[in-house]
Amino acid sequence: MLENSGRTELTSLGEFGLINHLTEHVEIYNPESSLKGIGDDAAVIKYDNNKSTLVSTDMLVEGVHFDLTYAPLKHLGYKAIAVNLSDICAMNGTPKQVTVSIAASNRFSVEALEELYAGMLYACKKYKVDLVGGDTTSSTSGLIISITAIGEAKQEDIVYRNGAKEKDLVCVTGDLGGAYMGLQILEREKFVFKDNPQLQPDLEGNDYILERQLKPEARVDIIELFKNLGIKPTSMIDVSDGLASELMHLCTQSGVGCELYEDKIPLDPQTFDRAREFSLDPTVCALSGGEDYELLFTLPLSEYDKIKNLPDFTIIGHITPKSSGLNLIAKAGTSHPITAQGWNSFK
Amino acid sequence: MLENSGRTELTSLGEFGLINHLTEHVEIYNPESSLKGIGDDAAVIKYDNNKSTLVSTDMLVEGVHFDLTYAPLKHLGYKAIAVNLSDICAMNGTPKQVTVSIAASNRFSVEALEELYAGMLYACKKYKVDLVGGDTTSSTSGLIISITAIGEAKQEDIVYRNGAKEKDLVCVTGDLGGAYMGLQILEREKFVFKDNPQLQPDLEGNDYILERQLKPEARVDIIELFKNLGIKPTSMIDVSDGLASELMHLCTQSGVGCELYEDKIPLDPQTFDRAREFSLDPTVCALSGGEDYELLFTLPLSEYDKIKNLPDFTIIGHITPKSSGLNLIAKAGTSHPITAQGWNSFK
Repeated sequence: MLENSGRTELTSLGEFGLINHLTEHVEIYNPESSLKGIGDDAAVIKYDNNKSTLVSTDMLVEGVHFDLTYAPLKHLGYKAIAVNLSDICAMNGTPKQVTVSIAASNRFSVEALEELYAGMLYACKKYKVDLVGGDTTSSTSGLIISITAIGEAKQEDIVYRNGAKEKDLVCVTGDLGGAYMGLQILEREKFVFKDNPQLQPDLEGNDYILERQLKPEARVDIIELFKNLGIKPTSMIDVSDGLASELMHLCTQSGVGCELYEDKIPLDPQTFDRAREFSLDPTVCALSGGEDYELLFTLPLSEYDKIKNLPDFTIIGHITPKSSGLNLIAKAGTSHPITAQGWNSFK
Repeated sequence: MLENSGRTELTSLGEFGLINHLTEHVEIYNPESSLKGIGDDAAVIKYDNNKSTLVSTDMLVEGVHFDLTYAPLKHLGYKAIAVNLSDICAMNGTPKQVTVSIAASNRFSVEALEELYAGMLYACKKYKVDLVGGDTTSSTSGLIISITAIGEAKQEDIVYRNGAKEKDLVCVTGDLGGAYMGLQILEREKFVFKDNPQLQPDLEGNDYILERQLKPEARVDIIELFKNLGIKPTSMIDVSDGLASELMHLCTQSGVGCELYEDKIPLDPQTFDRAREFSLDPTVCALSGGEDYELLFTLPLSEYDKIKNLPDFTIIGHITPKSSGLNLIAKAGTSHPITAQGWNSFK
């Protein structure tokens, strides 16, 4: 996918030329807060007087976080933006701006970086977020993307990881484990392709989980929904490393325990079927898979009526005293301590 | 310098463990605006109601922007922070927060990253800036540092690149070309060392220019001085790529030309002497060397009395109509068009 019909070398544009070229289609969707975007020493942002600024940053490294054998550059650009916006959502905030820094080796052509930027700008348009700054430089090997997402929230609306209280409901949006199963399909086809480059990849019937892996979404819609419902979670985090790891963050920082019901964990049928085919436990895919970018949050029991009939939410457990620890109540009714390492790029 | 007495592998701590370990000594110097630092999905920042937020981001790649053969990791950490804060100063703003993302290969030990962080935290302490977020991940090769600097300014105090007016004075802080000459010394000693590893590097008498290269400072003191003097430049930029390149940015964005007087360009005697020894033109070192991180700005003539006796400032030229272009008036009185490419990491 790095071989486009026309190949322009990065050296031919130079650093300033490349930045100008890549950012010429940048649009501003929030002129009231993005006062100055690309083109000066810093971007200038101003939110309403009563709003706070949320800032989150993430680095994606080729060969560690993504594999260009199967991740198209446009999708990668989209995903890089979406997963950063997800962090702002996880604070119950609204993402408004991003800055993007990219280091790319000479293996990449101008056209390849155009694809990457096209995906990022598509995500910016979708989420009405402004690309207000960044840096484009060379690397000695591979592609590195660093994104900082900036958003706003009223101070009293911000939800931290540490507010879960005993008896709170544990809820999650959407379904889990799909992104992980999508990755399994892509890894399998990469392996098949290595053995026999003539074979076309067999991705049929896996559209949902592939999209979950390649083009995840930030749940800005849920933040809007919370506002409309008059709901403020007591704690929240986004599911980037897997349900078990995120639950552990919420419980540890809140000083509580929890009971998680295995049969309540929302799974898409495609996730379930593919997991079975791969001889994987679907529950384990949800617990440890990661990259679903759904929101995991806790709510007081008193809010139950507001959410019980909403298809976006699933109640998957409840908060217990710290001394009880974190436990998974299996389908058979047995209780198992939840352990989670989260994903570790150094292993 | 990667071989410390004790070597702890990055894998031994894991990603969460490493972040916790590296950030355990983080202090908050601005509790009134850094409402939430490291430890949640995003940092929370709130400035005074009448202030805007400035955001700038930069990526440093090993083998492109720095060479660990001669840049000690602690200095590198300090420099990485300082050069980002410099961008906030270049907007006439005050830096308040940073986020830091690091990708490091397994070549680096925990102790090596501790050194890097020690340098960054030392800079944070010096500049009273809070490290409020970041990401630490693995890379397939080398070290990549991405920093986002965040600062504040009253909207009416912000200085852009595009406000220079005809007849304005062109001024610069400190002296120029030193960082470039420091780099020449370091490159020479690296070369000598390659040929004969027994030889100790000969750095004597070069302390000033080595410090300019290895430990540059952001001119937050100048922003303070502007405030005290009641001065607001009409345009400003920091000197990262060399005087010629930065002047071109100011003039292009302001739609003006300029005359720059060669004999006014401030040079430290050490810079001058070393340049001569290396058979380099000291003026060219200042024009094209870069990395001095001084502030280049323009001021209305009417402000002349406020700055004429201040040792921090040198008036090096004046703004002319756009049609005159950018010209260097040489010591002999002859005029030469200024051309600048800036530094291009892709070449």
